[in-house]
Amino acid sequence: MIPYQIIEKKSRGEVLSATEIAEFINAYTNGNIPDYQMSALLMAIFIKGMSTEETLALTKVMLESGERMDFSGAPGFVADKHSTGGVGDKVSILLAPILAVLGIHIPMISGRGLGHSGGTLDKLESIPGFNVNLDLDTWHDLVMTEKVGLVGQTGNICPADKKLYSLRDVTATVRSIPLISASIMSKKIAEGIQGLVLDVKTGNGAFMQTVSESQALANSLVSIGKGYGIKTSALITDMNQPLGAAIGNWFEMKESVLGLQGKGPDDLMEVTYALGAEILRMAQPDLTQEVAIGMQQKTVADGSAFEKLLKIVELQNGDPKILENMEAYPEAKFSKTVHVKQSGYLAQINTMALGFAGIQLGAGRRVISDEIDYSSGMYIQKKLGEKVETGDEVLTLHSNNETALQEVAGQLSNVFTYTDTRPEIPPLIVERIN
Amino acid sequence: MIPYQIIEKKSRGEVLSATEIAEFINAYTNGNIPDYQMSALLMAIFIKGMSTEETLALTKVMLESGERMDFSGAPGFVADKHSTGGVGDKVSILLAPILAVLGIHIPMISGRGLGHSGGTLDKLESIPGFNVNLDLDTWHDLVMTEKVGLVGQTGNICPADKKLYSLRDVTATVRSIPLISASIMSKKIAEGIQGLVLDVKTGNGAFMQTVSESQALANSLVSIGKGYGIKTSALITDMNQPLGAAIGNWFEMKESVLGLQGKGPDDLMEVTYALGAEILRMAQPDLTQEVAIGMQQKTVADGSAFEKLLKIVELQNGDPKILENMEAYPEAKFSKTVHVKQSGYLAQINTMALGFAGIQLGAGRRVISDEIDYSSGMYIQKKLGEKVETGDEVLTLHSNNETALQEVAGQLSNVFTYTDTRPEIPPLIVERIN
Repeated sequence: MIPYQIIEKKSRGEVLSATEIAEFINAYTNGNIPDYQMSALLMAIFIKGMSTEETLALTKVMLESGERMDFSGAPGFVADKHSTGGVGDKVSILLAPILAVLGIHIPMISGRGLGHSGGTLDKLESIPGFNVNLDLDTWHDLVMTEKVGLVGQTGNICPADKKLYSLRDVTATVRSIPLISASIMSKKIAEGIQGLVLDVKTGNGAFMQTVSESQALANSLVSIGKGYGIKTSALITDMNQPLGAAIGNWFEMKESVLGLQGKGPDDLMEVTYALGAEILRMAQPDLTQEVAIGMQQKTVADGSAFEKLLKIVELQNGDPKILENMEAYPEAKFSKTVHVKQSGYLAQINTMALGFAGIQLGAGRRVISDEIDYSSGMYIQKKLGEKVETGDEVLTLHSNNETALQEVAGQLSNVFTYTDTRPEIPPLIVERIN
Repeated sequence: MIPYQIIEKKSRGEVLSATEIAEFINAYTNGNIPDYQMSALLMAIFIKGMSTEETLALTKVMLESGERMDFSGAPGFVADKHSTGGVGDKVSILLAPILAVLGIHIPMISGRGLGHSGGTLDKLESIPGFNVNLDLDTWHDLVMTEKVGLVGQTGNICPADKKLYSLRDVTATVRSIPLISASIMSKKIAEGIQGLVLDVKTGNGAFMQTVSESQALANSLVSIGKGYGIKTSALITDMNQPLGAAIGNWFEMKESVLGLQGKGPDDLMEVTYALGAEILRMAQPDLTQEVAIGMQQKTVADGSAFEKLLKIVELQNGDPKILENMEAYPEAKFSKTVHVKQSGYLAQINTMALGFAGIQLGAGRRVISDEIDYSSGMYIQKKLGEKVETGDEVLTLHSNNETALQEVAGQLSNVFTYTDTRPEIPPLIVERIN
């Protein structure tokens, strides 16, 4: 195998063989192919695409690059939820404890911020001490005993994907159906789950901006899952505005806690419950949608889901007290408010620009080595379709980097579009695919 | 500037602004953008292309990344010739002394072997002691006093190009018209020249294999040159067979000397004089083509061009005596002759395969650290369209590596194609573009 020739072949748009894909990816994982050759191949795949067979071959080599978990001894249903990434999407942090309380085992492997989107791991790590790097045995025990463990791509789970994911994040090769499909599904299959619900975001803050792209991704993901014998469904949900109000790691952690305390934003709770219902109904096919949602609401109302989160945080070395006394968290030194420029209705939000603005403020990484400022980020105070007056607060930015804060504030003038007449708002849950 | 967004923009096929290109390339040159991001952008450019404006902006940033020479004090016309690379192309070694004798100043920056093609620097270094690594001041003085200095990409000339070039070489992003154009032209413009003639090779031994690709490259190069106020023209010349008979560093040096002594192969002399005429007529627009060619022939006939070469060699620390007594040069230990397999006409030569065969024999580098065996290479004894008999000698291979020699001889069976009827031969000089 000559790496140069494989890169060249894909750059011409030709189909790579399963052997070529396996040899290239394995050599990269073992350090025998440098990042700069891998990123050239990634860009060629990104632009020229991959066939279904190539995507399956890529999923297989990534899955087989590491260990696979075995939860066959678990007394209940073993399942996971995965989102394709958006802005302000903190659903996993709410859903994991809710479902655990309801008896579902959740061996959840989450990711870090990718492109303009945030990552569950970064949000969890905003809790002092929280350890997402459990070894596989500890994690396995946690899932068996507590029903949930929230980890990163730990130990030797899909090491090929781990290395590739970091590289895609900084080379603008994220938004590719075959690369996304293989990355998500190799990790999910390695979790040893029986059920999987996918939250495929659509809109201007999603990696897939049109509904048809999102459908294509959802179909690709669902077919790989089913091919491996996993009950799989997908909800296509709207990402033309942030989910909830908080963007930024600690801010999102805080909003998740509020959600589990019954004070969460409507859109966040609706998406959370709808995804939870998918899993609950895979576990118990005779449940109605209404009952599946009601069961979850009860875990919030009676405090059991929040208790579960505190327990998880404690067991993963985090400080649960900060979640019970969130005002004690260090605040960013600088903040700045953005105001509505024109009375009328909030008609459009450039959601991706908000995601990138968050990164500039310190909430994400521009290069792999960047450190995150957990106290930075923003709150959006208006929702699409809402009636607004000139001068209303629409966004508050927070950062420890004053220069970045001023820069970002200057760039945000065209992020919001206002109209005189009430605009049509896309549905929050667009479609179910299974 | 967020590198990610620039990579993403180009991956969508959008046009980058001059500022975006400048900031990205400068950050890469300064080490603030890693190789893996640069190679992702290179692949996006490779597949999606660049507009004329983008190519100009790329040329500009590479040019401005380093020093520019100033020959404004030169009493005569300052010009250079550049070839896009082929097999057996030793024109520069003949043309530099011929034009210097005729009063043209030639600040020539040449390259090393690349892919299957040879490099002028490697050929010059086959002369014991010849130093192509002059510092900029020494080189400047040499051009001012002797009218010619033959060097590599020395000192701080286009450091951005130097770094980018190494990366393109290992990421399959070499064969791209905008990337080739900016790389060539930034270095040529940095030479501080008033005139430039480009020898754009076309055919199966060239990087651009079709005439239309070669035309596109020639047009791109000429338009950049003119944009910088340099008189620029291009000849598209045939590379469906080696130029001359010699392939390999010392062999080509020797054939160049024979050329300057009036004993050169017709095709080599025709291309040399045609390219030289372009420059002479830029310097003196009232010259006819015939006179411009006659002037050059005279420098060969009266020995002044060869004298000039000896002088350059001496001033660049080489041993001129070896050029006057070429039999004294050490010969390769092993040689092997390839014979014609079928009587008829020589109809096709896989020229690129001959170039790669030369590298295997020791005449080029497979990896950067390879050392060149200057006595290795080959002589091709037949030209396209020539009548041949079974058993005629068509190629003689020379090497100090007997294993390589046997291997190469075994691989060459399909390099020559013979036909019963006289084949049509492509013209040597296909087109002039200016």
